[in-house]
Amino acid sequence: MKHSALCYVIRRTLIGGWNCNRHGSSVVRPFLAEEMRQRNFAADGGNGGFFYWKRMMSSKAASETEVKSTEKEKKEESSGKKNNAVVSSYWGISRPKITREDGTEWPWNCFMPWETYQSNLSIDLSKHHVPKNFLDKVAYRTVKLLRIPTDLFFKRQYGCRAMMLETVAAVPGMVGGMLLHLRSLRKFQHSGGWIKALLEEAENERMHLMTMVELVKPKWYERLLVLAVQGVFFNAFFVVYILSPKLAHRVVGYLEEEAVHSYTEYLKDIESGAVENVPAPAIAIDYWRLPKDAKLKDVITVIRADEAHHRDVNHFASDIHFHGKELRDAPAPLGYH
Amino acid sequence: MKHSALCYVIRRTLIGGWNCNRHGSSVVRPFLAEEMRQRNFAADGGNGGFFYWKRMMSSKAASETEVKSTEKEKKEESSGKKNNAVVSSYWGISRPKITREDGTEWPWNCFMPWETYQSNLSIDLSKHHVPKNFLDKVAYRTVKLLRIPTDLFFKRQYGCRAMMLETVAAVPGMVGGMLLHLRSLRKFQHSGGWIKALLEEAENERMHLMTMVELVKPKWYERLLVLAVQGVFFNAFFVVYILSPKLAHRVVGYLEEEAVHSYTEYLKDIESGAVENVPAPAIAIDYWRLPKDAKLKDVITVIRADEAHHRDVNHFASDIHFHGKELRDAPAPLGYH
Repeated sequence: MKHSALCYVIRRTLIGGWNCNRHGSSVVRPFLAEEMRQRNFAADGGNGGFFYWKRMMSSKAASETEVKSTEKEKKEESSGKKNNAVVSSYWGISRPKITREDGTEWPWNCFMPWETYQSNLSIDLSKHHVPKNFLDKVAYRTVKLLRIPTDLFFKRQYGCRAMMLETVAAVPGMVGGMLLHLRSLRKFQHSGGWIKALLEEAENERMHLMTMVELVKPKWYERLLVLAVQGVFFNAFFVVYILSPKLAHRVVGYLEEEAVHSYTEYLKDIESGAVENVPAPAIAIDYWRLPKDAKLKDVITVIRADEAHHRDVNHFASDIHFHGKELRDAPAPLGYH
Repeated sequence: MKHSALCYVIRRTLIGGWNCNRHGSSVVRPFLAEEMRQRNFAADGGNGGFFYWKRMMSSKAASETEVKSTEKEKKEESSGKKNNAVVSSYWGISRPKITREDGTEWPWNCFMPWETYQSNLSIDLSKHHVPKNFLDKVAYRTVKLLRIPTDLFFKRQYGCRAMMLETVAAVPGMVGGMLLHLRSLRKFQHSGGWIKALLEEAENERMHLMTMVELVKPKWYERLLVLAVQGVFFNAFFVVYILSPKLAHRVVGYLEEEAVHSYTEYLKDIESGAVENVPAPAIAIDYWRLPKDAKLKDVITVIRADEAHHRDVNHFASDIHFHGKELRDAPAPLGYH
């Protein structure tokens, strides 16, 4: 583990900022405090943290009755406005400052140091589900058909393809996770861990997007296209998942097989020099625990490994349904990336 | 930290079962392996784990070409069927067996030992957002109006009220998280950690439900009512969140204030003897790290603390919007429970 020697230090500070990468000190849930102590964190498990959006001092959050609440909130807002910032410390909601061993601040809000990982690069990239029945064939042929306009539009621009298709890839996990969540609620049933598994898939795909956006900036017509495609795909997948989760997971499994293929082609272009092997973006180095001198090739390699894992999980989920079972009958994998 | 002395041991085993609490050995992502080593886990970071649904031996997952894939999958399925079980080991998806220090198996799939926590019982239960503007008043009066039929239906049956209303409470976080996720994708923007924060709220509320269901079994007409209410509330909240996330978060903030009040009344009934102070269900003891002899009163106390935290976060989120900002402009809290 490349970053295992790093110690992350949480300090209660009064530093914040407009930049979404900046955060102030915080309430730290007790387990997190324990976890951080094990990782050489200095953590505070008490309530009443501070929050700022600008680098400034705050007033302390306090317990108030309704009348005092109003006075307190008004006072804090006017105090904040004097300093050209929004202060909302009444609710005691804030974020601890997390720094690396070298003292530099952890710049990311959407993932924390303990949520980073190293991809399993030994995963078998060649696995393929041979269509066995009618639904499998529908799924397979749909994906193959969709590939045609995709290839025509992107040609060999694999960077652009990756960036735009990750906006699509991050939808199924969220839709599936949400529908399983709603089902668990109305049936008063456990989920077998699959809600988290699918939501983690969605988040992982979103992190692929956040990485690709550092490398490839979308043009205005590409943004419009993403908007249109999301509207159609979200609704279509929502309906398909309700009618046939077996089909839905199979489609995703085949989509991921295509993704593995596309990323392999991307790697060929990088190795041949057709695409410049630029330094890896910082977000990728932190998220996948890559070496500091990692390159685009390393990034695409780990993304491809993630897609292979998603392929396996979705084909497996479809197999569960194929055998007439629900996902909850088979515990979901841990560490779903 | 009451459970800090416990050591969890992951062993690669070949034990599985139909029960959703059973799981086999697994691929363990490298970071998880490191995390487990720090917690005295024995972990395996390699690929090619095993998965079973019945207690039996499996065949090893292998890398195959398309022709071999078919043969391999067929062989494994027929082998499984002979033993009256579904074997789907081709995809290498499985779950490690996690045991406590005393050797007993970790029985839960929807949360792992490192996801348990102790609620912050010092949280201020009396905080209230005084309605300041038109939208605040709409939110406040809507919640107060909805309380009328709720009180008429449930009266002082607070256990039943809690069980059924948690099916509603777990919806907003999921809807909000999903909409923020989709927004992040189509705008190619970071989320500030709010997607995870809202999804964690939803999952926390779902865990409240899973706990209450151990104590109060829903009747058939209550299940029908939950179905109807979910259909209406999900769609209504979806639309409200799209039109006005400020209003949506404010409504949730006020709903949580009512939840804190209801749980306080529930505690009064327990303390007066009107409701029997039964032993806490096992899921609650594990999830909130309660003592082994915890009672219903302890469970309701920690649930109430969670609701108070949700209240704070949602009012804060609404305040962010009230100041003309997006949630991503203010980093979300960590450890969202």
